[in-house]
Amino acid sequence: MNKTVKDYLQRSIDIATNNCKTGNGGPFGAVIVRNGEIIAECGNSVTTTNDPTAHAEVNAIRQACKKLNTFDLSDCEIYASCEPCPMCLSAIYWAGIPKLYYAATKHNAADAGFDDDFIYKELAKKEADRTLMSKHIDLEDHDAPFVAWKNMENKVEY
Amino acid sequence: MNKTVKDYLQRSIDIATNNCKTGNGGPFGAVIVRNGEIIAECGNSVTTTNDPTAHAEVNAIRQACKKLNTFDLSDCEIYASCEPCPMCLSAIYWAGIPKLYYAATKHNAADAGFDDDFIYKELAKKEADRTLMSKHIDLEDHDAPFVAWKNMENKVEY
Repeated sequence: MNKTVKDYLQRSIDIATNNCKTGNGGPFGAVIVRNGEIIAECGNSVTTTNDPTAHAEVNAIRQACKKLNTFDLSDCEIYASCEPCPMCLSAIYWAGIPKLYYAATKHNAADAGFDDDFIYKELAKKEADRTLMSKHIDLEDHDAPFVAWKNMENKVEY
Repeated sequence: MNKTVKDYLQRSIDIATNNCKTGNGGPFGAVIVRNGEIIAECGNSVTTTNDPTAHAEVNAIRQACKKLNTFDLSDCEIYASCEPCPMCLSAIYWAGIPKLYYAATKHNAADAGFDDDFIYKELAKKEADRTLMSKHIDLEDHDAPFVAWKNMENKVEY
């Protein structure tokens, strides 16, 4: 029997719940599917891998890309136990995944003590109003990397 | 002689330029510094590692965390050859890095063919208006992972 969107979402929730029980990391899970086949399924592993970017969705993207030997997941869908934070949502864009389904919302996440909504709000602010001190310093050389890229032959675009 | 902000930024630019020349990936570089010491320095490696999240800043965060054996970089600064994309900016927040310096802007990146500004605009839109098809499906079980997290003893918060 073919699996439905709800089946894959439930799977991401089960991974998230189990992820707490095993002590692997935070209460989040993600599943990546291509043509009805699960390509990757991961929980959050920030604390056990000492990697603040190791959210469930990012882990699943990395795992799927490794498995499929590509950085382009435009033929996949992603199912997340919770609405992705801006890092994960951006990673979904960079991976070219066209479809996202999620169960809990960022407000549910905030209620559970996770700062996703805070980061959404920070990104929407002007630089000067953010808690992150960030400063643009215009060095003469700032375009040198882009010039090198432009002049590169046989480059792999992404 | 102590290095200045401009020295570290120039280093990130040099890494970015060199990253094209070696074929390691896109024209971006990042340096993470703690107490005047360079802890990590990385270029983008999306295409050579098949990892769409392997932007320079994310790579540098992962390398610094590995080196320092922590997921918390709140005593570090990050220097980026270009204004971080929303994925990298969010990763900087998750890593707790309080200070960011960058050289080129997201508009320079867009001129060079990189979609950072597009993703910033997408994130600012309502879900229904984004190019990414995303759908919230409210499963009964959606809070189960958060309940498991709340009930967990001795959990490592992050």
